[in-house]
Order: sequence, then C-alpha cells, then structure tokens
Amino acid sequence: MTTSTARVRLQPDTRREQLLDLGVRLLSTRSLEELSIDLLAEEAGISRGLLYHYFGNKQDFHLAVVRRAVADLLAQTAPPDLDDPLERLRAGEAAYLDYVVANHEGYLSLVKGAQGGNEALREIYEETRAALTERIFADPDGLVEDTPAARLMVRGWAALSEELVLDWVRDPHGVSREELLDALTASLPALVAVLP
Amino acid sequence: MTTSTARVRLQPDTRREQLLDLGVRLLSTRSLEELSIDLLAEEAGISRGLLYHYFGNKQDFHLAVVRRAVADLLAQTAPPDLDDPLERLRAGEAAYLDYVVANHEGYLSLVKGAQGGNEALREIYEETRAALTERIFADPDGLVEDTPAARLMVRGWAALSEELVLDWVRDPHGVSREELLDALTASLPALVAVLP
Repeated sequence: MTTSTARVRLQPDTRREQLLDLGVRLLSTRSLEELSIDLLAEEAGISRGLLYHYFGNKQDFHLAVVRRAVADLLAQTAPPDLDDPLERLRAGEAAYLDYVVANHEGYLSLVKGAQGGNEALREIYEETRAALTERIFADPDGLVEDTPAARLMVRGWAALSEELVLDWVRDPHGVSREELLDALTASLPALVAVLP
Repeated sequence: MTTSTARVRLQPDTRREQLLDLGVRLLSTRSLEELSIDLLAEEAGISRGLLYHYFGNKQDFHLAVVRRAVADLLAQTAPPDLDDPLERLRAGEAAYLDYVVANHEGYLSLVKGAQGGNEALREIYEETRAALTERIFADPDGLVEDTPAARLMVRGWAALSEELVLDWVRDPHGVSREELLDALTASLPALVAVLP
C-alpha cells in the first residue's frame, strides 16, 4: 500500500513536477495555444483552481511546461560516450530528430512563438540553441575551433539543422533517416572548412 | 508645367503605386506594427479616408506593402550577367545582404510575422524564398543538380544564409563583409557535396 500512501502524501513540489510532466506529454501532440489549464485539469483529474495555485496564470503555466520540455530535449540529446567526435555529433543529431518527431506539434509551436516575437519563448529558445551549440565547442576533441567566425557559422548550421529536420518531418523528399543524419553530421565540418 | 499637370491628373493605379513605394520606404526602418495608415497619410499628405479607399484595411495595406517590398528584393537580387556561376551566386548574396542592411526593420518584421504564424505573411515569405532558391536550380551552368535531396539541402542553406546575414547585421563578430560573402557562397557547394 506504499504507492497509495505516497499518492496521498505527495509533496507539493512533486505534484507540480508530475503536472509539468503531464503538460509536456499533452504538448507533444498539441500547440501551446491548444494546451489549456482546462485540458490539464481534466487530464489530471484536479480542479482548475489548484492548477492556478501551482502555476499562477496561463502564460506562466505555458512557460513552465516549455522549460520542462526543453530540459527533456537537452537531456535526450546529451553527447553519448563514443570515441569518434563525428559519431558523437551524429548521435546528438539523431536524438534531436527523434525528439522533434515525438514532440512535433509542441516543438513547432515553440519555434513559431519564439520567432514570432513572444519574448519569453524567444529567451527559452535562444538559451536552448546556445546550450546545444555550446556542446560543439565543449567537445573534448575540438571538432570546431572556437573563433568568432566559427560561432557565427555554427549558429547558421543550427538554423540549417532545424530547417532540414522540420522540412524532412513534413515531407522526407525520398531522403532516408540515415541519409538525413549523414548529411546533417557531415555539413558541420564542411561549413567550418569554408571559413576564412 | 507637364509635371504639375501630371500630378493633378495622376491615374488611380499610379497613385496607388506611389503610395506603395512610400510605404516600402517607411517600412525599411520600421516594423509592420509601426507602419500605420495614419503615418502613411501624414507622410503622403492625404486623408486616411483616401488610403482606405486604395487599400481596404490595415491588414490589406500591410500585405500590399510587403508584396511590393519582396518584389524589390527579388529585382535587386536578380542574377547578374557574369560568366562564373559562383560569381553569380556571390553577387546575389551580396545584393541580399545589402537589401537586409538597407531594410533591416521591415525585413525582420516580415520574418517574425511569417515564422510567428501570420498565414498571409508566411505565404509571401515562402513564395519569396522559393523564388530565390529556384534561381539556383535555374542556373544555366547547373550549379546544383535538381534532386529531391538537393532541394531539401538548398532550403537548409537558405535558412543558414538568413541566419548568418541577420546575425552578422546584429553583430559582425569580427567577420568582414567580404569574408561573410565568401563563406555564404562557398557554403552552398560544400553542403551539396555532403549529400548522398
């Protein structure tokens, strides 16, 4: 009976975390606009009032869910323990692709919100992209030399990766998953090689 | 006195074109949100009522100005008469960079509106990007072979170009204009070379 006791005595923080997890699951197949407090209340079987207690308002609730969603993205794309730096890069791109496929609607609405001028979403989006690209410069094998020009190019590569992945998810154009990952991986050193 | 006679007898279509030109000039240093019917009326020295007569409503006015602005972008970036296909590509990128520098605020607000889910702006933005990338496949020297995978990659390259140009305009990171143009130009064949 430990489980039911735990359920009853759940700490507020733990409860909030569970609600955030549920929000992230709901967001995976929905846009942020479609993710309402009402829907979360219904799915969680608790009152709207309690949700407002945990999250303040709809905007704060959305930001908390998006922060949790991008924390999941960063965790899932963490560089794996592989010897070859290009294999590490490829594994990260594969995890990013899988994340976008599994959370397509929610990820798209983060991108749209961030690009469309929602400043709070833009901040989260920029922090996430910075964390993802920082890994390239933090790679122990120094895949890319850390220069201002290389940082500019890596930002461009990140934009290219996002465009290719979102385009490919919409329509693979006859390109296989493996071919896409090969191209995404090989494009980084190819782009860095054209720098002055 | 031909000039003043012409001014008085101006045809409605010509007058509308002049107002659009003025709208495009005003947009170059402003976002779409800042470009109001009131401002255009003041700058043109005509009544708001007459502007509504020409453009219907604010949304239609904005779309007409944006369509004119991207027509200018396409005209200014038309491939020049140069023998070397990479020189043609570089000249197009230089014209694109100059356009973004000269029309920064307006261009940024088109990108934001299009990415943020304004469907009418998104359509104009996508058509413009399609027209720009189509030139690559229409190049008489066949710079890039026309395959589905190459089309996917050229879309990625367009996203990279936009990101690099907008980033560079915000902060050049010590990269000179010539170095940026060299990198933008060389990146296309480098990316196509990594395709399967």
